[in-house]
Amino acid sequence: MKLTGPFKQIVTLAHLPLRGKISDDQLEIVENGGIITDNGKIVDIGTFETLLSAIEKNATPCAIEFIEDEQICLPAFTDSHTHICFGGNRAKDFAMRNAGKTYLEIAESGGGIWSSVQHTRNASEDELLATLLERIQFLLNLGITTIEIKSGYGLDVENELKMLRAIKKAQTKTPATLVPTCLSAHLKPKDFYGTNREYLDFIVNEILPKVKEENLANRVDIFIEKSAFQPEESKEFLLKAKDLGFEITVHADQFTPGSSRIAVEVGAKSADHLEATIDEDIAFIAHSDTVATALPGASLGLGEKFTPARKILDAGGILAIASDWNPGSAPMGNLITQCAVLATYQKLSTAEVLAGITFRAAFALGLEDRGKLEKGMKADFVTFATDDFQNILYHQGSLKASHTFINGQKI
Amino acid sequence: MKLTGPFKQIVTLAHLPLRGKISDDQLEIVENGGIITDNGKIVDIGTFETLLSAIEKNATPCAIEFIEDEQICLPAFTDSHTHICFGGNRAKDFAMRNAGKTYLEIAESGGGIWSSVQHTRNASEDELLATLLERIQFLLNLGITTIEIKSGYGLDVENELKMLRAIKKAQTKTPATLVPTCLSAHLKPKDFYGTNREYLDFIVNEILPKVKEENLANRVDIFIEKSAFQPEESKEFLLKAKDLGFEITVHADQFTPGSSRIAVEVGAKSADHLEATIDEDIAFIAHSDTVATALPGASLGLGEKFTPARKILDAGGILAIASDWNPGSAPMGNLITQCAVLATYQKLSTAEVLAGITFRAAFALGLEDRGKLEKGMKADFVTFATDDFQNILYHQGSLKASHTFINGQKI
Repeated sequence: MKLTGPFKQIVTLAHLPLRGKISDDQLEIVENGGIITDNGKIVDIGTFETLLSAIEKNATPCAIEFIEDEQICLPAFTDSHTHICFGGNRAKDFAMRNAGKTYLEIAESGGGIWSSVQHTRNASEDELLATLLERIQFLLNLGITTIEIKSGYGLDVENELKMLRAIKKAQTKTPATLVPTCLSAHLKPKDFYGTNREYLDFIVNEILPKVKEENLANRVDIFIEKSAFQPEESKEFLLKAKDLGFEITVHADQFTPGSSRIAVEVGAKSADHLEATIDEDIAFIAHSDTVATALPGASLGLGEKFTPARKILDAGGILAIASDWNPGSAPMGNLITQCAVLATYQKLSTAEVLAGITFRAAFALGLEDRGKLEKGMKADFVTFATDDFQNILYHQGSLKASHTFINGQKI
Repeated sequence: MKLTGPFKQIVTLAHLPLRGKISDDQLEIVENGGIITDNGKIVDIGTFETLLSAIEKNATPCAIEFIEDEQICLPAFTDSHTHICFGGNRAKDFAMRNAGKTYLEIAESGGGIWSSVQHTRNASEDELLATLLERIQFLLNLGITTIEIKSGYGLDVENELKMLRAIKKAQTKTPATLVPTCLSAHLKPKDFYGTNREYLDFIVNEILPKVKEENLANRVDIFIEKSAFQPEESKEFLLKAKDLGFEITVHADQFTPGSSRIAVEVGAKSADHLEATIDEDIAFIAHSDTVATALPGASLGLGEKFTPARKILDAGGILAIASDWNPGSAPMGNLITQCAVLATYQKLSTAEVLAGITFRAAFALGLEDRGKLEKGMKADFVTFATDDFQNILYHQGSLKASHTFINGQKI
């Protein structure tokens, strides 16, 4: 048992609702607070003095970890949508796109997603592991301790499994919680000779059983978009994946609307992107248990509009915010910067942003044991050396986390 | 004399034009390059091996500074528009604005620019100096070695001079080049009992002579906007300031168009903001020697549209990009992130962005001795530990500079 503190503020997020809008005065903040942890869980939260007195009075065996200076403590963050397992980079694409080149011109010069597939296929599992661990460390430094990571740059049996095995191996080398997702349905690879439907059947018949067998992921994702997979074939695929026992998440409505409905209809844990979602479909997803995930990093990476986060919250939806960190459209990786910018353009309260990268994002991953600092929750928290929690988003990512704790331990 | 290198690439920016569009293939990049510096200036640039051989052959007395690993070298950056001398912060404003509160509601709750004036007035010169030096260090870490800094949160004789004295004192404590600007015409303070014109006359008669006397700044700025100073009174003020021997810069066209014309008409060094500039006025400024300065940090801080940078360049204008770092509308301070996002939304080439934060920004400050790595230029440069210059903007600020050099010396 250990008492950690005192913190100038502990922003607990306790009792906040799973869905809908939240104002900052609903935040339960403990001033001069302390956290008692044991076996990786939170045992108690209160003012540091009160907790300390009780320990002394009852002579409870409990270590004390004093926190220096002024620190703000929040639940550690969850990034519920990333593609951080990949080979190569796409800096040339980024520069060409900025300079006004078209998708086709970029693809013709050897860029585009196919370039990431080739680099990922050419990388060994250990090479993928090494860069993956670097990116995980980058996220841990931001205070992100739960990270979803997708496959989807292998696009054949061998390389999709290689990616998922690298993620599984990474889990043995990091205290972060990694949540792998099979995204073999990212797009139909150039070297698959058959229709989209045949490729999706190939995933169901050849890839998913092996994913299951090696216990590499229990989630399946698909990119439903004009340029990738079409609504009907995608729905059939998702239902088959569900039958195999996988949870579902969907890349939906990024450029064209409609696919978020499919996500809801198949009972997906989340529908991610939604930049192009029409009002009617916002209502549809907002009334479901499918989490709507905004990916402001993709908007900032492509120069596109933002997910209608405000409307989703006003309609009562469950809004998560994730980085979409990937080599093509979202190379920044700094979820805090992205959240601050989304909040400004979409008019979100600090509470709504924090909920979107803590318990609401964790819910999208089926992890309801984290994201609030309450008794019984996983003791993952992050601290910032500043005197008020509002300073964190205010600096738009320039204020760095001072410490990240996982299971009550400073990492 | 010192030879520094080898660098995988030296992005010299040599021979790039002062105005108009630039493509990345116009960048003169020296592969495996070295830089010879002496007395703070660049003496030679070329391949490291060639420079080294010449030194050995001629037995030139010259130190060698070997650079480890793969590094990219660029001219150090200039941030030509900041407000980083201030007291307090405005995190509460930021959160309220994001949560949908109006300007009036924020002002009524004690926020807005007046709150920065009060905090700045309440701070001592040494207190201002201390936080100013922290912010300068933040910019130095990004590779920014030339920094414009405005007054404008004092708004009376004593406090405007206090701000400018703090900036002058900071110059004795940092190797960065600081360029102070008197922005007493930021807005008419609540406690000035008179008209706008009377306040502007007060600046001309009471503040500017003392600024001159103490040699605190040779630049004068004004915020021309419906909510601040009106076009005609501003023009008269600027002409008087010019008569006193000051260079001119203007906050123009942020929310309403028209004032960039005034900047051009009075021969301002730069017109900054320009988010609302109409096409006709873009042509007007583009044909002048007044630098058009985009401030993407203000767009990202307020959730507003970006300066039409693409149109300005296409029309042949001189485009600079600056952070506008200030406690209210642009609290991020990370000029690299801001540039990368502006490039994506406005379709700028990497060369155009780099020009905008090097020699074009320096030109706006009247400093034509820096911003390109050429013989005779100031030896300020920045390095990044990566294998290609396109990676710098690609990571949208997440790739940090590895070293900053001023006058040829690693700081």
